[in-house]
Amino acid sequence: MSLVVTGTIGIDTVHAPGGSAENVIGGSCTYFAAAASLRSPVRIVAVVGDDWPDEHATMLDSFDAIDTTGLERRTGSSTFKWGGRYHDDMNQRDTLFTELGVLEEAPPPVPDAYADSRFIFLANTHPGVQMGLLESFPNRALAVADTMDLWIDIAKDDLLALLAKLDGLVINDSEAAQLSGLSNVVDAAAAIRDMGPTFVVVKKGEHGAYLQHPDGEAAIPALPLTSSQVVDPTGCGDSFAGGMMAHIAASNCWDLPTIREALAWGTVAASHTIEDFGLTGLQAATVDSMQSRLERFRSITHF
Amino acid sequence: MSLVVTGTIGIDTVHAPGGSAENVIGGSCTYFAAAASLRSPVRIVAVVGDDWPDEHATMLDSFDAIDTTGLERRTGSSTFKWGGRYHDDMNQRDTLFTELGVLEEAPPPVPDAYADSRFIFLANTHPGVQMGLLESFPNRALAVADTMDLWIDIAKDDLLALLAKLDGLVINDSEAAQLSGLSNVVDAAAAIRDMGPTFVVVKKGEHGAYLQHPDGEAAIPALPLTSSQVVDPTGCGDSFAGGMMAHIAASNCWDLPTIREALAWGTVAASHTIEDFGLTGLQAATVDSMQSRLERFRSITHF
Repeated sequence: MSLVVTGTIGIDTVHAPGGSAENVIGGSCTYFAAAASLRSPVRIVAVVGDDWPDEHATMLDSFDAIDTTGLERRTGSSTFKWGGRYHDDMNQRDTLFTELGVLEEAPPPVPDAYADSRFIFLANTHPGVQMGLLESFPNRALAVADTMDLWIDIAKDDLLALLAKLDGLVINDSEAAQLSGLSNVVDAAAAIRDMGPTFVVVKKGEHGAYLQHPDGEAAIPALPLTSSQVVDPTGCGDSFAGGMMAHIAASNCWDLPTIREALAWGTVAASHTIEDFGLTGLQAATVDSMQSRLERFRSITHF
Repeated sequence: MSLVVTGTIGIDTVHAPGGSAENVIGGSCTYFAAAASLRSPVRIVAVVGDDWPDEHATMLDSFDAIDTTGLERRTGSSTFKWGGRYHDDMNQRDTLFTELGVLEEAPPPVPDAYADSRFIFLANTHPGVQMGLLESFPNRALAVADTMDLWIDIAKDDLLALLAKLDGLVINDSEAAQLSGLSNVVDAAAAIRDMGPTFVVVKKGEHGAYLQHPDGEAAIPALPLTSSQVVDPTGCGDSFAGGMMAHIAASNCWDLPTIREALAWGTVAASHTIEDFGLTGLQAATVDSMQSRLERFRSITHF
């Protein structure tokens, strides 16, 4: 049932209305893997530079179910760095700086030991790189990816080629509209499914998520949180995807009821991430706290 | 179990991206009552002028479960008229004209036959008028109201006096923020509950609804609709409240599980309203279509 994620590991500086954090661990692979590890073992493929802080390595290692065999520490290269500032309306943020560093070099190699991976998640990066990584997993059962506005703008042909190979796509609502040219979420998901993916999950942030699947739909709200529970939204989308894919991998099933429940696991994972900077929120989570929050989520959404 | 609604009946002209409709039946009481009537008998208290079109009376009478004893047709007065134009993003609209007409005169009398009404919904109007109407129902079991930005701006003291008497408030997300001074929905609902209502339902349009109740919360998305299913959002909030209150009245219960299911009834009612102009969408609905849509809604939201 092995789950693998390819994506970025970064050093983040985040300013949010309630506080700031400098040089905390970040990146799509990082959040995905930490969230997934609360539900399933997860393998990572990622690269950092030799400036990667030891305390970030210690933080990542604190998640026992993450297999870091595929984490390359490249000598002479610099780790990806990102800085951002959230508005009082935390749906809005400004990027303060982006230093791609090692992300501009060759992608990390996929360890031979990962060749039997069945559940593949290609976190956001250039779709050409995602395609190369996808081809490293010939025994895959399910391949799902994320993408972003930048690649829709500058690498649409590569993205369309990737979409044709995917089983699933996880995408923000604004990016779903951009990719499809359709502002209605249901219409946009249908148009994206016509581009290749069997199922599409549209992430709507504080408004929840929408799934379109050959056998039907799912719609869920986010877990209601007070303003004091919302510290830093960075990584919530990746955590959502991590919780979702981990439930699919742990269930070894991707039928409609399983993906519906997977959306709930993703929601619960993201609700832990948002409570603190970096991985601190997820580090405080346990299998029991995830299960208990899932039951709370079930009770407030079912009628 | 008798349910009564006080509110407006209007003559609407609506321009939406997919078409326009002139001089169709509108108003908060109208949409509430038509939606509610698919789940429960409902009494109305409203006033129109002698210009009220016969075809509107015929339309309202086509909903068998609406009791129009409390509908006054006032000689020499003009019916309330409203015109609006929706943007391509139908969450935005401009008001083209408002002719208050009979709404600037004395409110309609409450028939003696309504005195035993137990479930009271005060649809949006001046909170001083709502208070007067509320006092006409001494045997009430549950009083719920809606309000709008205008009254928060110009009649806040009257509104606060009304809130102290209410069991529940149904309010838009933007208006909940305005009333409480808090942008977070959970915080805003808690602050409004401190003003009086035992429970608060925050309507989030296409993003669903949120309930805060002494015994817990509920959060539901809207029913996913394609753009071709979204014709005219006018009256959706009133239809939501109608479906919700009708389920509470039909259940003769307002505990947390009942109101949770009532939110789903409201959602399903609104999904009928949005499909056409005026009451045409609700006229096409039946008890069976409501039940079948409720089951679809349950299946896509439960995990």
